[in-house]
Amino acid sequence: MLSWDQETYIPENAHSFRSKQLGYFSTQIHNLSTSKEYANALEKAESESVESDAQRVNIREWRHQFEKVSKLPKDLVQRDSEACSTAMSLWKKAHSSGDFSIFAPQLEILINIAKEKTDLLGYEDEAYTALLSNYERGANTTQVEEIFSNCSEDLISIAKQATERSENTPPRKMEGFFPISKQKELNRQVAESIGFDFQRGRIDTTTHPFCSTQGAHDIRITTRYNESNFLSSLFGIMHEAGHGMYEQGLIADEFGRPAGSAISLSIHESQSLLWENHVGRSKPFWEKWLPVAADLFPQLKDWSADEIHQHINTAKYSFIRVDADEATYDLHVLLRFKIERMIINGEIAVKDIPTTWNDLSEQYFGIRPETHSDGCLQDVHWSFGLFGYFSTYSLGNFNASQLMHTALQNTEIKNGFETAEYAPLLKWLRGSIHQSGSALLPQPLMKEVTGSGTVPIYHLEHLKSRFL
Amino acid sequence: MLSWDQETYIPENAHSFRSKQLGYFSTQIHNLSTSKEYANALEKAESESVESDAQRVNIREWRHQFEKVSKLPKDLVQRDSEACSTAMSLWKKAHSSGDFSIFAPQLEILINIAKEKTDLLGYEDEAYTALLSNYERGANTTQVEEIFSNCSEDLISIAKQATERSENTPPRKMEGFFPISKQKELNRQVAESIGFDFQRGRIDTTTHPFCSTQGAHDIRITTRYNESNFLSSLFGIMHEAGHGMYEQGLIADEFGRPAGSAISLSIHESQSLLWENHVGRSKPFWEKWLPVAADLFPQLKDWSADEIHQHINTAKYSFIRVDADEATYDLHVLLRFKIERMIINGEIAVKDIPTTWNDLSEQYFGIRPETHSDGCLQDVHWSFGLFGYFSTYSLGNFNASQLMHTALQNTEIKNGFETAEYAPLLKWLRGSIHQSGSALLPQPLMKEVTGSGTVPIYHLEHLKSRFL
Repeated sequence: MLSWDQETYIPENAHSFRSKQLGYFSTQIHNLSTSKEYANALEKAESESVESDAQRVNIREWRHQFEKVSKLPKDLVQRDSEACSTAMSLWKKAHSSGDFSIFAPQLEILINIAKEKTDLLGYEDEAYTALLSNYERGANTTQVEEIFSNCSEDLISIAKQATERSENTPPRKMEGFFPISKQKELNRQVAESIGFDFQRGRIDTTTHPFCSTQGAHDIRITTRYNESNFLSSLFGIMHEAGHGMYEQGLIADEFGRPAGSAISLSIHESQSLLWENHVGRSKPFWEKWLPVAADLFPQLKDWSADEIHQHINTAKYSFIRVDADEATYDLHVLLRFKIERMIINGEIAVKDIPTTWNDLSEQYFGIRPETHSDGCLQDVHWSFGLFGYFSTYSLGNFNASQLMHTALQNTEIKNGFETAEYAPLLKWLRGSIHQSGSALLPQPLMKEVTGSGTVPIYHLEHLKSRFL
Repeated sequence: MLSWDQETYIPENAHSFRSKQLGYFSTQIHNLSTSKEYANALEKAESESVESDAQRVNIREWRHQFEKVSKLPKDLVQRDSEACSTAMSLWKKAHSSGDFSIFAPQLEILINIAKEKTDLLGYEDEAYTALLSNYERGANTTQVEEIFSNCSEDLISIAKQATERSENTPPRKMEGFFPISKQKELNRQVAESIGFDFQRGRIDTTTHPFCSTQGAHDIRITTRYNESNFLSSLFGIMHEAGHGMYEQGLIADEFGRPAGSAISLSIHESQSLLWENHVGRSKPFWEKWLPVAADLFPQLKDWSADEIHQHINTAKYSFIRVDADEATYDLHVLLRFKIERMIINGEIAVKDIPTTWNDLSEQYFGIRPETHSDGCLQDVHWSFGLFGYFSTYSLGNFNASQLMHTALQNTEIKNGFETAEYAPLLKWLRGSIHQSGSALLPQPLMKEVTGSGTVPIYHLEHLKSRFL
């Protein structure tokens, strides 16, 4: 609640006290969850007979989390948090000036802490797994490397063709003013229509869109507004509503326990990307919603569904990951996965990061950033100490396409999809993904629902059919 | 934060979980603040040499609070909280139907718990003091009875004359539509202009207006909107901004400790009433703000400051305290003070409350409620277990008038007041009241600032000059 408020409604001068409050609670949480009492209670639970599947899941995951968090000594957690706090302001300076040397010494400290963590947490194949598996339960680097190397050439080729195609047949330009109040109206209607429950959630405005769970029946999403482009807040809302509907679909009675919690980031991201990209950027969606949008924004009156569909599915190389379209997005992730592994495995020194980044950029995109702000300084993640996080974005993309492929085998879902009625799709996601909570790990879950663990083939097919 | 959110932004279905969270924290707070560790820490602090006035104040008030809260056994606190929780829904039913018998049995339970508390807390003059002094630090029933009996005849007489006068010369009627967005604009401008700091606070919308402190630099006020009357939200904001400016004026470095906390409800209410009534309902205020309001609400264009001043200072008897004007308000409080004393001292039985209430209503107002919803069922306070609270409203009125009387002796403040520039007034309140925190108890504080403890004479003078 304190974090949500800090992003939404907090007055300007209240930030420093709020940071202290949050620091206090995170220390309390760490202390409680590594305490002797917690360990004893967990052992006791393990020794008792288990009565339900949910209990079994809870105990399994609590043990997993306890083992992990117990391996990190308090002083490391403290050093980590201090290093991140220092890194944030240095990254901001470096990012705004493009001067990597401002950030480099602190980045080295963060990398060394991350390496320390890998030694303490342990791993089977390589050090990077110890970090990656923090965000993607049960994953290891070998698996992800296999998935990514299976598709990197195809992704490069699709991106090349898609960007050329868009350059040759440029989309219609969108013009005019899109008042925030009208955008809010449209976003709410769309979110409601795809199944986000406003009795159990709400929308607020923040600089960076997010989804925040405050209770089983209290899921809050956010977006930001651009008055010359209504699509950015709309797709933001569809993305976050995808996260939100996953959270709203978890077993409410198990709220706060693993059986009622999301299993991993790649599964979470599969839900947001499915609603944003597969639904929100589809033709049938716009056949239904363009007239509604045109009632709110008269400048859209003479647009056709084809035109807007082409407009929102334009491919163009960009340096910045968060601005990337679907056709080029995954290459940004592959780049980061590659460079992070080299960093954590000690294959490159900190000082070599900018050049390595730019070389990879040329290899994947055929373009080379002119400033490091457009290159290795663009993402905030490292200054939070987040190494191993990025690959979940593409795993999420692959999972989304794989889930959609399976879903569309069902006639009712397919008919719904083609008439922009998504109740059957949501119902299926509820039953197959949401209700599972943390019962199945991500790969067994994907296998149970789609017949195989995560593979890139469905995503490649999706990109081809959309862009080529 | 959880409470503030519950009143402002919480989704509909999230209330029941939120209540559990709040219940959890209130138990934790009770446990911590009555624990052996707390007692030991307090004793240790008392045995050490005190270095500052603030420390002395903190230790004195912590000891006072600890003694009080330690006297109430856990089971009583638990029973009290359960009884209130049951009472709330019964009161709602009784209030909407006017059937006192629905609420009576539960009210009897609450009264018995209140009586139990008086025995445990102890008192010098009479049992009611044990409750009253919970809200008004250092007050006792004898003092308050003296203040009230010194003015009750005058208040009755002023109310009679004022209501007759308003009936004979009725004010101009206000008509038309007042859009919420325009009301918000005006309210914000006014709040900013009188000195509420929006870098350290904000305004939100709630059913019942309140002021909530989330940190030394985070004071939030609320109001509600009526689109056929902009005055209700405006006076709501001026009232809550009065509370808010008190909180913003406390010593920030002592936040969360008594030296940085308000001393009592009658002092708090003096600040809200001073800004709402003495400032907001004055002629100079409207000479400045009527043109601004008329720019936002064109239907006010042909109103004069005299007309609106008369409109907002119209006196009329009403059954409902919260709807009462300044001229009749205190009689509502005197009535409650009288009947609560009789209840707690065991002079009347629960079943006799409605008749006694109606008799007192005739005595004070010359009118008799036709339903108990307009009589003894109108206020929610008893269902929260709040006995002894009401008198702080009138003590607040008396303090406000007494403080204004002193303030206006100062030429700069008086000149400011007459030109609707309130910086000198706020500066004086900061220095004399706000910065004092809990250093002085209410009566010594009033004496230090105005030369005497609370007396009703200045309020009577204020009412006469405004209404007669």
